Amino acid sequence: MNFQSDNQSSVFPEIIKYLEEINKHSSPAYGSDNITKLANGMLTDLFETEIKVMYVSSGTAANSIALSSICPPYGGILCSDNAHIGGDECGAPEFFTGGAKLVQIQTSNGLIKKENVTSTLKNYGLHGIHEILPSAISLTQASELGTVYTPDNLKSITKLAKKNNLYTHMDGARFANACCFLKCKPADISWKSGIDILSLGTTKNGTISCETIIIFNKKIQEDFERRQKRAGHLWSKNRYISGQIVKWIENDRWIKAAQRANNQALAIKNILNKNKNIIIKYPVNINMVFAKIPTKLQTILKKNNVNFNPWYGENNLTRFVTSWDTDDNEIKKFEYIMNNL
Amino acid sequence: MNFQSDNQSSVFPEIIKYLEEINKHSSPAYGSDNITKLANGMLTDLFETEIKVMYVSSGTAANSIALSSICPPYGGILCSDNAHIGGDECGAPEFFTGGAKLVQIQTSNGLIKKENVTSTLKNYGLHGIHEILPSAISLTQASELGTVYTPDNLKSITKLAKKNNLYTHMDGARFANACCFLKCKPADISWKSGIDILSLGTTKNGTISCETIIIFNKKIQEDFERRQKRAGHLWSKNRYISGQIVKWIENDRWIKAAQRANNQALAIKNILNKNKNIIIKYPVNINMVFAKIPTKLQTILKKNNVNFNPWYGENNLTRFVTSWDTDDNEIKKFEYIMNNL
Amino acid sequence: MNFQSDNQSSVFPEIIKYLEEINKHSSPAYGSDNITKLANGMLTDLFETEIKVMYVSSGTAANSIALSSICPPYGGILCSDNAHIGGDECGAPEFFTGGAKLVQIQTSNGLIKKENVTSTLKNYGLHGIHEILPSAISLTQASELGTVYTPDNLKSITKLAKKNNLYTHMDGARFANACCFLKCKPADISWKSGIDILSLGTTKNGTISCETIIIFNKKIQEDFERRQKRAGHLWSKNRYISGQIVKWIENDRWIKAAQRANNQALAIKNILNKNKNIIIKYPVNINMVFAKIPTKLQTILKKNNVNFNPWYGENNLTRFVTSWDTDDNEIKKFEYIMNNL
Amino acid sequence: MNFQSDNQSSVFPEIIKYLEEINKHSSPAYGSDNITKLANGMLTDLFETEIKVMYVSSGTAANSIALSSICPPYGGILCSDNAHIGGDECGAPEFFTGGAKLVQIQTSNGLIKKENVTSTLKNYGLHGIHEILPSAISLTQASELGTVYTPDNLKSITKLAKKNNLYTHMDGARFANACCFLKCKPADISWKSGIDILSLGTTKNGTISCETIIIFNKKIQEDFERRQKRAGHLWSKNRYISGQIVKWIENDRWIKAAQRANNQALAIKNILNKNKNIIIKYPVNINMVFAKIPTKLQTILKKNNVNFNPWYGENNLTRFVTSWDTDDNEIKKFEYIMNNL
Repeated sequence: MNFQSDNQSSVFPEIIKYLEEINKHSSPAYGSDNITKLANGMLTDLFETEIKVMYVSSGTAANSIALSSICPPYGGILCSDNAHIGGDECGAPEFFTGGAKLVQIQTSNGLIKKENVTSTLKNYGLHGIHEILPSAISLTQASELGTVYTPDNLKSITKLAKKNNLYTHMDGARFANACCFLKCKPADISWKSGIDILSLGTTKNGTISCETIIIFNKKIQEDFERRQKRAGHLWSKNRYISGQIVKWIENDRWIKAAQRANNQALAIKNILNKNKNIIIKYPVNINMVFAKIPTKLQTILKKNNVNFNPWYGENNLTRFVTSWDTDDNEIKKFEYIMNNL
Repeated sequence: MNFQSDNQSSVFPEIIKYLEEINKHSSPAYGSDNITKLANGMLTDLFETEIKVMYVSSGTAANSIALSSICPPYGGILCSDNAHIGGDECGAPEFFTGGAKLVQIQTSNGLIKKENVTSTLKNYGLHGIHEILPSAISLTQASELGTVYTPDNLKSITKLAKKNNLYTHMDGARFANACCFLKCKPADISWKSGIDILSLGTTKNGTISCETIIIFNKKIQEDFERRQKRAGHLWSKNRYISGQIVKWIENDRWIKAAQRANNQALAIKNILNKNKNIIIKYPVNINMVFAKIPTKLQTILKKNNVNFNPWYGENNLTRFVTSWDTDDNEIKKFEYIMNNL
Repeated sequence: MNFQSDNQSSVFPEIIKYLEEINKHSSPAYGSDNITKLANGMLTDLFETEIKVMYVSSGTAANSIALSSICPPYGGILCSDNAHIGGDECGAPEFFTGGAKLVQIQTSNGLIKKENVTSTLKNYGLHGIHEILPSAISLTQASELGTVYTPDNLKSITKLAKKNNLYTHMDGARFANACCFLKCKPADISWKSGIDILSLGTTKNGTISCETIIIFNKKIQEDFERRQKRAGHLWSKNRYISGQIVKWIENDRWIKAAQRANNQALAIKNILNKNKNIIIKYPVNINMVFAKIPTKLQTILKKNNVNFNPWYGENNLTRFVTSWDTDDNEIKKFEYIMNNL
Repeated sequence: MNFQSDNQSSVFPEIIKYLEEINKHSSPAYGSDNITKLANGMLTDLFETEIKVMYVSSGTAANSIALSSICPPYGGILCSDNAHIGGDECGAPEFFTGGAKLVQIQTSNGLIKKENVTSTLKNYGLHGIHEILPSAISLTQASELGTVYTPDNLKSITKLAKKNNLYTHMDGARFANACCFLKCKPADISWKSGIDILSLGTTKNGTISCETIIIFNKKIQEDFERRQKRAGHLWSKNRYISGQIVKWIENDRWIKAAQRANNQALAIKNILNKNKNIIIKYPVNINMVFAKIPTKLQTILKKNNVNFNPWYGENNLTRFVTSWDTDDNEIKKFEYIMNNL
């Protein structure tokens, strides 16, 4: 039973079939091919608005290129104290922006509160140009702790952000899972909620390695493509990355896969919940369960081949992650083990 | 007939089959999987020495991460005046190194001569710390103009480089084609010829997007993996990139593919050569033909659906590139058109 | 009465006299002159050990060049939540290091506690190369809140740091004031307390603009001079900056000036203390007094031409700073006003 | 006799007197003081137009901060093959811009020709975003080889530059000497000739260390001050740097000093010219003489305490530099030696 990370999951078979299908002779390079046009069109339809799209192979790249286009080197990017961009990207945003600073906002559950944005911004201004210039805010939807912003949450934050001249970025590594939980459309929690630029993740949810940057705000005029190119993130054979999106969107495959992952996490939560020594730490909105499990119990589980990861911040805190391909047998085996400790 | 770029070519069907095959359930992320171990082992065998390997999705990334590990921000990287790193990577080496300078050495055919390295180095030193510190040399094998260094050429340059405390990097975007032309083994034109670190390209020669950095020199102690991660070039599902290498190496597929591409370029050269108004500009060592073609003739060819690219530096200069999947019919059609102008 | 900042203070007249004196004809540039040799020697004597010295014109430059030599771009620099490098240098450390991250450690009074270093370091390691690499710690002596580390405090932290492979940097913008408070020698709170590299400030304490980087640890091999040069911080007429040091050290001028400033701050503290509506926020160890003063009272003071600055973090918090040239009349006038509110 | 560099020269005594004079008590920091206002006003008068001013302590800083405000990280800066920014600033422009590329234009005498700008720009565009974006041109007035652009030269180049969307920067390290040679006003060879932003050097011509950035083009909206601050180039006691400008401009001191330096260089040229084994390499427009002198003769001169520097590019090439404080006795002694070889 592998509940370590959705990064370890497999790929929709339809995607690999499709790569086989489009693997004909030569085709224009660097995104001027027809598959890429098709993918762009499908994303436009999915988001129900005019967008600009860029395909890259990692979420770190998507986040960092996006942020580098909305924050100057002497700027600051507000984000949560659990943000992936802060703790798990080895300084990539700093690298891509040329040295901008991530300004962490404390949260209790991974979700930034409007009042904490206000109080954070109050820390700036007194020393003028001696301080970095708060320039952007990055919200992770769903958050790194498996929680989800409602559209209203988002709107109140992005409104405040814009009033303070901050651009708004969304790290959507698990965007599909959030849509699923909220039973909303992609547009509802992106541009309709005031998001300027989105890192749309698909790799954790069925593709090989395809993360896209979706730009909604036309004021973002930065020479994106050159930033992409000079970061080594422009694929020559772009059709093999954009082609993944085609099959990801087709037949609502993306949302069904996210639903499946979310369901399996709920199942795990319910199983863990039955044990009175275990504390579920955060609401389980998507495909992740954070649980405090006594050390001894953790050892027993591992001996029984139940794999999960320790997590930061508290003793005994663990993370269980499911994916679109977490199968029912894994869950059943896990339930059996938990019932027979 | 598409002779524009080997970047537009397709992928070995065996690779896509293999991705399908390994697309089972979950597998450890970030390169700790078994496919990656297998690929590492096959590369070690191919190069006949102990190596350190990193997989990235573009040649620009491979070159830049490699260079950033052997040149400080205040350093200089010697390279040819036609180097891809200088003209076609939108400043990526400068970005990754934190501002190092590319020092161009003039060449007549894309190949750096030892004496020009000597004379270039003479331009440094007089002003001490007011100058950047020459720290590395990057050689492209085969060169951007389709020419190839012999092992002796390489050795004489790398020996000089080391005497001057320069690390030696090879941009091997078309390394396979060079091996093919020289009828040599990978080791012969890499570490045995004094190369410290190699960007081994495979994308132009049959993979989807798989470029590897191969480190030979154990003195290169830089924290490579963190540089890879913070550049967004660490794949979570690494098996789908390293898996490409497995099938690329298997059954000598890589060298056979390069041979086929080289042969087709020779065929094109021979066809062009028959026309006395056309001048073949550089020796055709690999899969590229540079030819000066009168404008009028270029127009006629394009009307006949013969696609090739203009090239820098001289009026009427053009580049024809073949690939492993350039088929004989394309060549025949091209010959027919040329014979019936 | 100006108690806003020691940055606004004047310069030892002896320094300007000396600049006049050495203003003879030409002299070798870039630090190869005799005045610079003299200054180097005097600093060596002052610190009682072999050192390497670099002169720059701002504390921001001194800190950032120092940090860039002990922390890689993918590294982290631990510092207090009040560190000048974090809040008042507009991202300079990030700029100079190529994107390293400042990791803030919470303090109650500007002084980092050993146990908080331990707990901060515990947040690193779980995610391997996905995290930045903690590489250095920067301690401000005296701290931004006017408090001072004892040699024992310093030793316990630097010992822990070294055990964890961190280099140790000291931001000594008010180093002289700390020496004064501790009645210790410069060596005691620098290399003898485990500091590898020091930014020694003199500008706030009587020079025009002369901050020096003092390197104690010979393992720091980085090409400092090139970093200095490429940052535009190498003076051509270096004698006019190093000459300031000569007169700063001569006749114990530096420590006497610091003592005077410290005394005047104590006087201010005592005056404020008499008013029961005013709370002295932090111990007054050096030339700064942090006091909570009711708004109304602040307004009255300002109307009476008493100038001081608001400070971050709490309502009504203010900062009073004295300098070597704060004269007794200013203090007396201030006392008179306070006594006659 | 020291003819090595004007960087080694002394300072106008009036400047040091003035620093003494303004060295009263405290004064607002970071440029909000009255001396700085006075200096700003005097510069505005000197340039006869509305300007924005920034004071820094080195030419490298002035050039690099200026360039970083007109060229993105993925941009290119055209400059001559002898440009100080290219060869003598240890990669500072690359550092400050975040990795932009200097594109060298060949010259025969340090002065860029319009047609060579045209041909250089022709090398860009064919490969779109794979190339850096030419964004600025930097002209050195007077050039590093002691030659001077006429206003007409400048206008023809800046017109071409603007047509190609390049900003125009002038490295005016020896701007005063050029004004002197051309008998023109500062405005004539700066904004009236199409220059957007100027690094105005004064250090080589009588100040301690004061280089200013003068911004003419109001379209340059970049947050300059934050760039200055984060580079460590914002002086706290700014009055001691801006005060240097006050006395530099007062009573035409600047132009008289430049005239004196230029005259002494002419004298040296005339002395050298008498020796038929010596070749004057470039026109002597300002305070520098480039001469090819046989090795033996060089040795004799050095034995006679005549100090000058070897120069790049040709065997036996040397550089003699005079300054405002090169005294007549030095010239006479030199003449005597040359006449009595």
